[in-house]
Amino acid sequence: MLLDGNVIAKSRMDYIKKEIDYIKNKQGIEPELKLVQIGNDSASTIYANAKINRGKKLGINVTIDKYDTMDEIELSRIIRKYSENVDTHGIMIESPLPRNLDYNSIVKNIPYYKDTDGLNPYNLGNLDLKDESIAPATARAVIDILEYYGIENKNVCIINRSAVVGRPLSMMLLNRNYTVTICHSKTANITDISLKSDVIVVAVGKKNFLNEKYVTNKSIVVDVGINYENNHIYGDADFDGINKIVNSITPVPGGVGPVTSTDIFLNFLNGLKIQLELGFR
Amino acid sequence: MLLDGNVIAKSRMDYIKKEIDYIKNKQGIEPELKLVQIGNDSASTIYANAKINRGKKLGINVTIDKYDTMDEIELSRIIRKYSENVDTHGIMIESPLPRNLDYNSIVKNIPYYKDTDGLNPYNLGNLDLKDESIAPATARAVIDILEYYGIENKNVCIINRSAVVGRPLSMMLLNRNYTVTICHSKTANITDISLKSDVIVVAVGKKNFLNEKYVTNKSIVVDVGINYENNHIYGDADFDGINKIVNSITPVPGGVGPVTSTDIFLNFLNGLKIQLELGFR
Repeated sequence: MLLDGNVIAKSRMDYIKKEIDYIKNKQGIEPELKLVQIGNDSASTIYANAKINRGKKLGINVTIDKYDTMDEIELSRIIRKYSENVDTHGIMIESPLPRNLDYNSIVKNIPYYKDTDGLNPYNLGNLDLKDESIAPATARAVIDILEYYGIENKNVCIINRSAVVGRPLSMMLLNRNYTVTICHSKTANITDISLKSDVIVVAVGKKNFLNEKYVTNKSIVVDVGINYENNHIYGDADFDGINKIVNSITPVPGGVGPVTSTDIFLNFLNGLKIQLELGFR
Repeated sequence: MLLDGNVIAKSRMDYIKKEIDYIKNKQGIEPELKLVQIGNDSASTIYANAKINRGKKLGINVTIDKYDTMDEIELSRIIRKYSENVDTHGIMIESPLPRNLDYNSIVKNIPYYKDTDGLNPYNLGNLDLKDESIAPATARAVIDILEYYGIENKNVCIINRSAVVGRPLSMMLLNRNYTVTICHSKTANITDISLKSDVIVVAVGKKNFLNEKYVTNKSIVVDVGINYENNHIYGDADFDGINKIVNSITPVPGGVGPVTSTDIFLNFLNGLKIQLELGFR
C-alpha cells in the first residue's frame, strides 16, 4: 500500500490557513516569516521560493533577505534585529550555509518562539517533556503519516541519528508509546534490527540504500531520503525493488516531502500563538 | 564481574575538587549551590543533607531554603532572586514536590547555566547537539560507568523513557556510537530486545524486575533502580538471581548511585564555568 503524503499535507494546509485567518481577523496582525539566505546555493533558492509560494496560499507573508557572504557576528546582529521586531513572527536560516557559519550555534540566537525550524535546543528539549509545539518538521511529518494511517504502538527502527530527524523523531515516538531503536552508520547489523521492526524510517541520503535485505512483508517503510539524480528525485529506498514485498511504503516524491513542507508552517503558527500568549503585539 | 561505581565516583570527586580549588584561588569566588525544599518528605531531606556533605568535601557551599508550602508564583519569585544573584551558581529544586507544583514547568525558570539538575529543556536539547556540559546526572553516571570499563560501540537496551534517565541517556549514547533501543511499560516483549542487546540499562522502580528471563551470559547490566524496603536499598535487578549468569553488573548500592551523586557537582562546575565565560562575577 502507498502511504500518500499529499492528502495529509492538504488537510494540514486547510487547518493552518483557518487558524491564520482567525488570528489575522481577530488580532489585526500580518503574520511574517523571515528567511535569511547566505550564499547562492541553487537548491536553497528553490526551497526558499517554495516556502514563499506556500506562505502566499496560507496568508503568511514570507520574505527573504539574501547575502553573498556573512560572518557569525553580523548574522547574530541580523537575527537580533528580527528577534526584537514584533512584526516578524518566525525566522529561518536557509541551509546549506557557507562553511564559515555553524547552523547549530546560530540557531541558539533565535528565540524559541520564532524558531520555525525547531532546532533551537530549547525546542528540542521540550520534546523530551512532551511539549511538541515547535518540532523539526521532518520528524513531525513522519509522526503525521503514522498517525493518519493508524499505525500505533509499534516497534520502530530509525536509520538516522541527526538532530533534524532521528533524535527528535525518537522522542516524539516515545511520547506515543512506540518502542524505538536508533541505528546509524556505526551500527553493526542494521538488518538484524530492521527485519524485526514493524516500522522502518530511513534517512541516510543514499539512493537504493534500503533494499530487499532490510524488509519483510510486514514492513511499513517511511522514506525520508531526498536524492537528486538527472533531474529526478529519489528516496533512500529501492522503491521498485521493495514495493511488492512490504506492507506499505511512502513514495518519493509525494510521501514525507509535502508533509514536511507544510509542517514548517505549523511551527510558524504555534510560535505565533506563543508570541500572542506572551503579549507581544 | 562487578562494575564498581565507588571507584569512578572517587576519581570524579578528585577532578571536581581540583577544578573548584583552581577557580576559587584564581577568581576569588565562593561557589554556592542553593537547594530549595518544599514540604517535609524525609527521603528528600536525606538527599539534601548528602549534597550538603558532599559539597563540603568539594569546597562548594551548599545551602538550603526550606518551606512548608509554596505556590508556583512565589516559587518563581524565589528562583528569579537566585537566578539574578551572581553569588549563587547553581539552583536545585528538591524532589518530590507537593502536588500543586509541576517540576518540569518550574525548572524552565532556572537559567540553563544554573540548572544543576540538567532538566531545563535547553540543556536537554543541547544533548541532541552533542553539547553535554550540563546533563541529567543519572544519565551521565551510566555513561561514566560504560566508559570507565571500556564498554564501547555496543547495542544498548534502555528500559525507561523518562526525561531524567532514558531520553537524555539515549542521546548521550548516540553521541558515542552506541545503537540504542528505548523500551517502556507499553513495549510488547522487552525480553525479545534485552536478550539481543549487549548492555541493559534498567530503571523501572521495581525490586527484582530484571530477572533471568531478560539476560544472557553476555549481558552487561546497569541497574539504575533505587527501591527501599525494610531499611535496605535494592535495585531493579534480581541481583542474586542473575549475578551468576551475566557478564557484568552494577551493584545496588555502590553502582550508579555514588556516580550520580558526584555527577550532580560536575553539572554545577560546568555551569559555574559558563557563568565565568559569560562574564558574571
